[in-house]
Amino acid sequence: MAMPKNSQAFPRSEYLRRLTEVKLEMKRREIDALVVTTPANITYLSGYTSKSGYVPQGLLVSLEDEEPTFITRRMDGPAAIHQMFIDRSRVIGYPEALIANPDRDGYDAIIDFLLDKGLGSRGIGLEAKFLPSLTIEKFRLRAAEARIVDCTNAVTWIRGLKSDLEIVMMREAAAISDAGMLKAKEVIRPGLREADAAAEIIATLVRGANGKPGTDLASFFMCSTPRTSTCHIRWTEDIFRPGSQINLEFSGVRHGYTSPLMRTMSIGRPADHLRRLHDGEVAGLEAALAAAKTGGTCSDIAVAFNATLRKHGFEKESRCGYAVGIDWTEPTASLKEGDMTVLQPNMTFHLMLGNWIDEDVGYVISETFRVTDTGGESFTKLPRELFEI
Amino acid sequence: MAMPKNSQAFPRSEYLRRLTEVKLEMKRREIDALVVTTPANITYLSGYTSKSGYVPQGLLVSLEDEEPTFITRRMDGPAAIHQMFIDRSRVIGYPEALIANPDRDGYDAIIDFLLDKGLGSRGIGLEAKFLPSLTIEKFRLRAAEARIVDCTNAVTWIRGLKSDLEIVMMREAAAISDAGMLKAKEVIRPGLREADAAAEIIATLVRGANGKPGTDLASFFMCSTPRTSTCHIRWTEDIFRPGSQINLEFSGVRHGYTSPLMRTMSIGRPADHLRRLHDGEVAGLEAALAAAKTGGTCSDIAVAFNATLRKHGFEKESRCGYAVGIDWTEPTASLKEGDMTVLQPNMTFHLMLGNWIDEDVGYVISETFRVTDTGGESFTKLPRELFEI
Repeated sequence: MAMPKNSQAFPRSEYLRRLTEVKLEMKRREIDALVVTTPANITYLSGYTSKSGYVPQGLLVSLEDEEPTFITRRMDGPAAIHQMFIDRSRVIGYPEALIANPDRDGYDAIIDFLLDKGLGSRGIGLEAKFLPSLTIEKFRLRAAEARIVDCTNAVTWIRGLKSDLEIVMMREAAAISDAGMLKAKEVIRPGLREADAAAEIIATLVRGANGKPGTDLASFFMCSTPRTSTCHIRWTEDIFRPGSQINLEFSGVRHGYTSPLMRTMSIGRPADHLRRLHDGEVAGLEAALAAAKTGGTCSDIAVAFNATLRKHGFEKESRCGYAVGIDWTEPTASLKEGDMTVLQPNMTFHLMLGNWIDEDVGYVISETFRVTDTGGESFTKLPRELFEI
Repeated sequence: MAMPKNSQAFPRSEYLRRLTEVKLEMKRREIDALVVTTPANITYLSGYTSKSGYVPQGLLVSLEDEEPTFITRRMDGPAAIHQMFIDRSRVIGYPEALIANPDRDGYDAIIDFLLDKGLGSRGIGLEAKFLPSLTIEKFRLRAAEARIVDCTNAVTWIRGLKSDLEIVMMREAAAISDAGMLKAKEVIRPGLREADAAAEIIATLVRGANGKPGTDLASFFMCSTPRTSTCHIRWTEDIFRPGSQINLEFSGVRHGYTSPLMRTMSIGRPADHLRRLHDGEVAGLEAALAAAKTGGTCSDIAVAFNATLRKHGFEKESRCGYAVGIDWTEPTASLKEGDMTVLQPNMTFHLMLGNWIDEDVGYVISETFRVTDTGGESFTKLPRELFEI
């Protein structure tokens, strides 16, 4: 029996629309083939979310073909047939002999395919920044007549502008993030182990919200007293105590799409300093969203946030956010002063206002939003509170 | 107040022992400094498990210094001070201006440090295979008088041989894996959503076992009918049905250490073909463990497994396992025919007997084991059953 196609997260027309954008960009860059290797970009162009990116794989977009071709480890082929919108004949499994083989690997299978298709003397795009240097050398050597063009982030920039269908998916992810945060508020108590709270919250993120389950695990950070100045610790073996502060960052996931959320909680009354910091950050958050209008820039958002926070007597050293979508961060536009990326409707950002000020003061709040003509529209429905437990 | 040190997962003497091994290898390779960038290798040499590896960071091991130095994004410094066994003065935060900056990044901070320390004209080791090509070019350009030596997997090979303390940690992780698998058997029922089962299992992996919580999330795969020929799908929005087969792969985590486990479950009586495949695989598993003796080779294990499975009328195309430890796979020794790595006591492997035969037949069983003088000793305490639900 052949592997059945799964129901797709998006209609075929949505994938073809994305591919049309990519092919226009390929023409601008004068390439005939693009080898997409970043997992999030493969998800974007095909619907594939299976976790096979630990070995070489590539989605080949060719100007000649409506659908892309996926070259992957043979054992991962059935998942690709199941999940991708493309015809099953376009999933090509390479043999196991290319795994843990120092001489030939899955990239050789990709190059073989390009050469067989007669693309060996044309422009070939690679996401070079995320490829091992030996792999790039291999392309240059084996496709010696090709013009190898660095297309790092070419697809990622296209991903930056979401369709309405993608916004729906990010709202579904946001509802899951909200459910997780409410679960945190419900379960965190003095004497509870951090791990037990994390277990409950993560289970909520997997069960999902509104009948729509989470479809994957994303990053999860729980940085509690005395670790509130850390930002990327999962959780510890410690327990919560009266007076503990808990900084949370996580996201629900829907078919790859994330909608990250941060909130700070306090067991008992928060210290005055923390309260003042919270007030300044929330004022900054609101100023930032007001500036997140079509035609403005990423820099405008950062300027609005920083100026407002400064009025409240605080500074934030790190950027105040970044483009967000499939697999969380898009390494393209940054919400920082000087980033002149022009805001367009349905660009989405994680307005990440985590502020780790010194070794014993850290505070977090964040929202994921989309750009509209009248300002940033947050996906979360949670209040902008310093949650007191 | 300064960030306090967390209690360490291992005594200082254990980290110094590991560093001594690394320095011996550095002398063999005639380098004075080694820039360790692989997150699992950083964990191994310092105790650090915070998730800051999405931006440049490096643990610098120098022949001159007993303790290594960690160069990381400034906001991640407090977590390093908290988690690493090294003195706080050895954690160096680079400024936020190096984030999302096309001209200078965290690797420049690492190169600056090497040059300042007078190591710019010596041998410098890099884990080149896992670094972007532009980063390697940057080292060559900015440390032009240094001899850049590719040390990919140098630390990883040292990690391959576990201390007794590490074996204890892997047994703790295995107990968590076992608890997760028993939870799966308990909760999977017809009509239940896959996501709801995943939520319960993952929560169990976080809560841990024997009073020791899981300390991180690791990969998690639940490939159920009609997807049993896939290997790397998280779970779906589907429900279980009478007759469903469920292939599970996951691991508990203790301070970075994993102990992966796979089992196949069946709602109702498994088909005869699946039962025969199970019998062959279990016989192969036992033959493989019997061959996993000090002085044998990885190839011996694969030969024993393959010959036994073949006697039962089946073949497995993919390798039958790989070295395992921190962050799951160690990309070094493979359990495949022709891998002549000599087995030593306390090498640990994931004997991964997942067998995805065609588009509608897939079966999984696996155990994580250590090499002993008398054969492989599995960490799981679960029976080698095809679990019937």
